[in-house]
Amino acid sequence: MPSGEDSLIARYFRPLATDPGAFNLVDDAAILKASGDDIVVTTDAIVEGVHFLSDDPPDTVARKALRVNLSDLAAKGATPAGFVLTLALRAADEAWLTPFARGLGEDAGLFSCPLLGGDTVSTPGPTMISITAFGRVPTGKMVHRSGAKPGDRVVVTGTIGDAALGLDILKGGAAAALADAAAKAMLIGRYRVPQPRNALATAVRDHAHAAMDVSDGLAGDLAKLCDVSGVSAVIDAPSLPLSAAGKALLARGIVGIETIVSRGDDYEILCAIPEGSFEAFAQAARLAGVAVTSIGTIIAGASVPRFLDGEGREIVLPRLSYSHF
Amino acid sequence: MPSGEDSLIARYFRPLATDPGAFNLVDDAAILKASGDDIVVTTDAIVEGVHFLSDDPPDTVARKALRVNLSDLAAKGATPAGFVLTLALRAADEAWLTPFARGLGEDAGLFSCPLLGGDTVSTPGPTMISITAFGRVPTGKMVHRSGAKPGDRVVVTGTIGDAALGLDILKGGAAAALADAAAKAMLIGRYRVPQPRNALATAVRDHAHAAMDVSDGLAGDLAKLCDVSGVSAVIDAPSLPLSAAGKALLARGIVGIETIVSRGDDYEILCAIPEGSFEAFAQAARLAGVAVTSIGTIIAGASVPRFLDGEGREIVLPRLSYSHF
Repeated sequence: MPSGEDSLIARYFRPLATDPGAFNLVDDAAILKASGDDIVVTTDAIVEGVHFLSDDPPDTVARKALRVNLSDLAAKGATPAGFVLTLALRAADEAWLTPFARGLGEDAGLFSCPLLGGDTVSTPGPTMISITAFGRVPTGKMVHRSGAKPGDRVVVTGTIGDAALGLDILKGGAAAALADAAAKAMLIGRYRVPQPRNALATAVRDHAHAAMDVSDGLAGDLAKLCDVSGVSAVIDAPSLPLSAAGKALLARGIVGIETIVSRGDDYEILCAIPEGSFEAFAQAARLAGVAVTSIGTIIAGASVPRFLDGEGREIVLPRLSYSHF
Repeated sequence: MPSGEDSLIARYFRPLATDPGAFNLVDDAAILKASGDDIVVTTDAIVEGVHFLSDDPPDTVARKALRVNLSDLAAKGATPAGFVLTLALRAADEAWLTPFARGLGEDAGLFSCPLLGGDTVSTPGPTMISITAFGRVPTGKMVHRSGAKPGDRVVVTGTIGDAALGLDILKGGAAAALADAAAKAMLIGRYRVPQPRNALATAVRDHAHAAMDVSDGLAGDLAKLCDVSGVSAVIDAPSLPLSAAGKALLARGIVGIETIVSRGDDYEILCAIPEGSFEAFAQAARLAGVAVTSIGTIIAGASVPRFLDGEGREIVLPRLSYSHF
């Protein structure tokens, strides 16, 4: 006589629990084997209306919930080991749960990060998905936010600002003026489904002095990395890697640089790479199929990192990043 | 230039991050050392209006959020190692956060379960706290739900039904008729602040064939344990350990047995102890200061466990446990 909750778990989520430590989701807890490594733990939640939109396709909501956590593991140099899921729902709606579970399962397979357990609860409020993800690194090898040193290159993966532009389009903002439908779809896709750079984890572990993922905005996240490292940085804004759509919107003055660097949802890796390691790091990135771009330099000091334009003038950023409070 | 979110974390939660693996909450992830043991992972969320009431004191909300997870670790025979916290809030309200963080910190200390990391997000909906907790057991020694064998004693810790009665009082239900103010306060306290039986974890690990914590109702949770163990059970209802208040309410017919065994929130340990180990288990429980009561027997079969009254007649339970959906 299983309850509705147990039936829901058995139907939608048991197929995702492929790891022996998940015990087919019929126990109260899972076992995570460290296998001699350090276990890296990260947790990130997404809330309907805050981190995703009510009409986002359910499979993209699932992918985003997992990928924002995978992105943290990548930046820490860790190999995914599994995750637990807390799902707060207004109702057990099959039309939503079926694609949600499918998207989650596909990404769990794609990133070798199986479901280990979870909790499904009812809520009168917005849908919320909280994931705690686990990774493994050789003992003592997790890459920290602290550790950046003057002279290090500031490097980011992929392109910056696309997700913020995608959200702007979905909200009918200035970027919605973009005429190119394919470019619009690309930007929206970047908002809905981040591309965590787990393929680069080993290279980050091997070469970076410090790393984090860009989730709240490049400017603010770089400020945080510099703050805990006790350094500052100078960024050459024209070097920022932008998509063609991002470039076009910026060049036409439809959006400003602050939309690109202060809004977040990028889920790219930001790292400090010592000058002498940069070529080896770039080569490893090429082999991993991840674009990396050197955008500036870590310098001594305690001031907020400066973004300079093509003439070396400082760009004033009204705010550095997204904050919930 | 820390954001509101960073300030909130630094102010309220950094003091709780006493484990070196938490890196003072300035990194994106924590390190959990397995130290040669298996890591037991459990996750449980509580939602305002569902698992706790809007006017419950914030320190009790924090304690409940952590303790429902500690209870899982206890039932699995695991020693607490730490936890990560996801906190979804409408606003950063100091009057709520201060006692919340104080209660959480006190319990983290009391149960040697330090805060390792977390995520704080804004929500337009109810407050929600999701905790993933970690414990350690010697390799292969986690106690499962499965494993109960015919002939085992069915044993529970503490008293059953008090939390359900406490909630009933808070909601102005039948149990509110209780005249004794101290008894009422005790029952409400049992609802708001569970007493996880972590002191019994080693004894459970040493002696139990199967165990779980009672969170959704004794009847339903026993049915789950029997189901995954491939057995059934017979429970002698007069043997159920009840508080004096619970006994009085039941004797006067103010509440029925189904309120006691089908409502949940007990957070006691339910376990199957082989007959030959019961005395040793009971002795270990006495030393740990945890009351244990033998309430029935595991039998062969696949039927839902039966609850018998003093005359051996089956008690019909309209429902076995709480379910979210």
